[in-house]
Amino acid sequence: MRLFILLVLLAFQAFPQSEDEKQIKAFYETVLTQGDSYRWLNYLSNQIGGRLSGSVQAEQAVAYTRSQLDSLGLDRVWLQPVMVPKWVRGTPEFAYIESQPGVTNNVPVCALGGSVATPQGGLKAQVVEVMGIEELKKLPREQVEGKIVFYNRPMDPTLINTFQSYSGCVDQRYSGAAEAVSMGAVGVIVRSMTLRNDDYPHTGAMSYGDLPVNQRIPAAAISTNAADLLSTTLKLDPNIKFYFRQNCRQLDDVQSYNVIGEIRGTTYPEEIMTVGGHLDSWDLGDGSHDDGAGCVQSMEVLNLFKKTGYRPKRTIRVVLFMNEENGLRGGRKYAEEARKRGENHVFALESDAGGFTPRGFSFDCTDANYQQVLSWKPLFEPYLIHSFVRGGSGADIGPLKDGQMVLAGLRPDTQRYFDHHHAENDTFEHVNKRELELGAATMASLVFLMDKYGIVKPPKIKG
Amino acid sequence: MRLFILLVLLAFQAFPQSEDEKQIKAFYETVLTQGDSYRWLNYLSNQIGGRLSGSVQAEQAVAYTRSQLDSLGLDRVWLQPVMVPKWVRGTPEFAYIESQPGVTNNVPVCALGGSVATPQGGLKAQVVEVMGIEELKKLPREQVEGKIVFYNRPMDPTLINTFQSYSGCVDQRYSGAAEAVSMGAVGVIVRSMTLRNDDYPHTGAMSYGDLPVNQRIPAAAISTNAADLLSTTLKLDPNIKFYFRQNCRQLDDVQSYNVIGEIRGTTYPEEIMTVGGHLDSWDLGDGSHDDGAGCVQSMEVLNLFKKTGYRPKRTIRVVLFMNEENGLRGGRKYAEEARKRGENHVFALESDAGGFTPRGFSFDCTDANYQQVLSWKPLFEPYLIHSFVRGGSGADIGPLKDGQMVLAGLRPDTQRYFDHHHAENDTFEHVNKRELELGAATMASLVFLMDKYGIVKPPKIKG
Repeated sequence: MRLFILLVLLAFQAFPQSEDEKQIKAFYETVLTQGDSYRWLNYLSNQIGGRLSGSVQAEQAVAYTRSQLDSLGLDRVWLQPVMVPKWVRGTPEFAYIESQPGVTNNVPVCALGGSVATPQGGLKAQVVEVMGIEELKKLPREQVEGKIVFYNRPMDPTLINTFQSYSGCVDQRYSGAAEAVSMGAVGVIVRSMTLRNDDYPHTGAMSYGDLPVNQRIPAAAISTNAADLLSTTLKLDPNIKFYFRQNCRQLDDVQSYNVIGEIRGTTYPEEIMTVGGHLDSWDLGDGSHDDGAGCVQSMEVLNLFKKTGYRPKRTIRVVLFMNEENGLRGGRKYAEEARKRGENHVFALESDAGGFTPRGFSFDCTDANYQQVLSWKPLFEPYLIHSFVRGGSGADIGPLKDGQMVLAGLRPDTQRYFDHHHAENDTFEHVNKRELELGAATMASLVFLMDKYGIVKPPKIKG
Repeated sequence: MRLFILLVLLAFQAFPQSEDEKQIKAFYETVLTQGDSYRWLNYLSNQIGGRLSGSVQAEQAVAYTRSQLDSLGLDRVWLQPVMVPKWVRGTPEFAYIESQPGVTNNVPVCALGGSVATPQGGLKAQVVEVMGIEELKKLPREQVEGKIVFYNRPMDPTLINTFQSYSGCVDQRYSGAAEAVSMGAVGVIVRSMTLRNDDYPHTGAMSYGDLPVNQRIPAAAISTNAADLLSTTLKLDPNIKFYFRQNCRQLDDVQSYNVIGEIRGTTYPEEIMTVGGHLDSWDLGDGSHDDGAGCVQSMEVLNLFKKTGYRPKRTIRVVLFMNEENGLRGGRKYAEEARKRGENHVFALESDAGGFTPRGFSFDCTDANYQQVLSWKPLFEPYLIHSFVRGGSGADIGPLKDGQMVLAGLRPDTQRYFDHHHAENDTFEHVNKRELELGAATMASLVFLMDKYGIVKPPKIKG
């Protein structure tokens, strides 16, 4: 692409006319010229790094984001205590495919979050490959007993929204071990949840359900290339063995915090609008996309209100939730405290789908409120925000849901998200400054409109 | 982002109903599961590399893409000879800021494409910083004479479409040297055309206009960080000097080729629909986004017609244009030959804005045709293609324009394009496979609809 050929071709940006258009333009221009989110993310990612719940890094992130919120001139900044689980990975995992005794191929592997360790010397067994839990359940028990179950159903590449592809196979990671135990398996290996063919293993939460500790079996993810290799090797010889070793542990719960800051509303201070992301992350990368991006974008929303000098009528609160990844304790705690205090949350917005170019929002709300937000859509079009869909909002704000309030999730472009998700390459250099900032301004614009026009409340019915 | 929280939230994809929906779905599913574009791009980028017109690499790219087109079972594949300019960079450029005699800071620099060399020992002179050509022209000649002109107007970060920001400052790079000569300057330094603050110098075409060879002065780009450093240093002491050395040369024109392949139409073979990108690139990176991506997407369009078994009524032609970057000889030659042969081009589509997530198209056509393409927009919505704007199409297909045919340009997301454009970091690892493939399927879908429904022709007026 060359020269100014495009000069004549581009639809020029219209000058903003209405007050709404002016304020939204101010958010976008301010974030793109004076935004702080990218600097904050740089610190979270490169000075602190991966922030697994209960880790030193998670506590450093609490202290850092609190200090940054303190510097914004908000009306109040505080920490909300919450007890969180502490799972530790231990020394790096190790795995290989043994195609015949003494002939091995090492493969990239990582323990799933919450998994138990292997025996100290590792675990070696024959492998039974299945394309999912349903297929496993149909096998005769003797084909599974004493073996490692290898869940190898890939994400569906034909779906345009990659979160749908993820949803379509994450049950293997989350529940695969518990199911395998019931069939007598000794371990579980899962194909990494990514659409790329590469050498990164992707971790993520798993659960043993109600299984007693002494019945739990170790579970790990291998990279997609390794999964393909293992599958091919099994086709050549179903009797080959797989070895892996991990010494992860679940420790006692520890004290941690949600980090909260607010600008108090001028007219309806009791009506609270919450915007947030989760401060914890997995430990393999530095958690830039998941969800450092959502945290700094949420902080930026309040920053933009301050920098553009707009005083909200309602209270705007930023919440950096702790422990989304392996417990959701922060989100639950926040909702529990809100109910205990009788707080009136009218709106909550979460950003937890990566710091990519924003495309729109999903809304979890009444028909009347959805119609209202649709009426605002033209205001977003100059910023190429085009997708206002109904659907879920986010894991952390979910517990606030009460049937009346509006919940929303920022929806960025999804194509690259799972390339990085829960893996070693979820790192700062994969976040583009402008994409991150555009997301923050898009969030601020929605919060502004919610503040200005309020939510549509259902008619009161006398009890 | 965790677990299956999103499962319930996502609007599920509707099953395709109409023939049009089915064919478009087939394009997207085929490209995402059996696409060849990423593999082709890998070869072009990593086995061949930067493909400046007249270079060995450009000729290797001609041979490689021809051989790949030969393998697709098209009706005809051929090379169209075109003479192209051959400019060579020579040994790596070198530059420094001399804040006082003997105290120097080296800065990243590259010659602009088409520039003359500095004297053999380099060029050292005082610097006059301007924010553009207009500002330069207003200066008294004695303030410029004997100095290096430093054009430092940055791209405007507040524009959402980064191509607009680029258009707003590329005159400095393209025409800055010719203007500086008229004021008696001895050299030109331009701030790199990117919105990032980094250490990559970005090259690109420049022109001396009608200036005789012996009056030309050398022109180079420095990185944005270097431009900021130079500007700050000048504020501290306007008498500091800048040194740069480059030994680039313009050689005689050489023979090259446009690479062309076609599927002949079954019903209206004389109506030609052309889809293309440019095969040449700048020499600093490997030209993956600019415009390896557009080439392999255009090849993929024909590949998708073959793989889905759809036989077009009109002739579909892929054209890989040579020399877009520094001459446009390929685009001009193609149009010239088309006119000479009396070919009837009804539609042309270009991809030359990077291999990023596709967002839509711009159309250069009659009102009636624009209304027709707008009527197809709902067919693209499941693929998040939402922007059908009027505007220019592309440099290479521009010369075909005749007032009746429809010209269109693929419009991907623009946020990251200028991070890489014409710089050392325009490389393969910055192209996402899915984003590239989605662009190809989006192009194939538009070509399919144009083929099926034809363009709206103006009523014939008797002469």
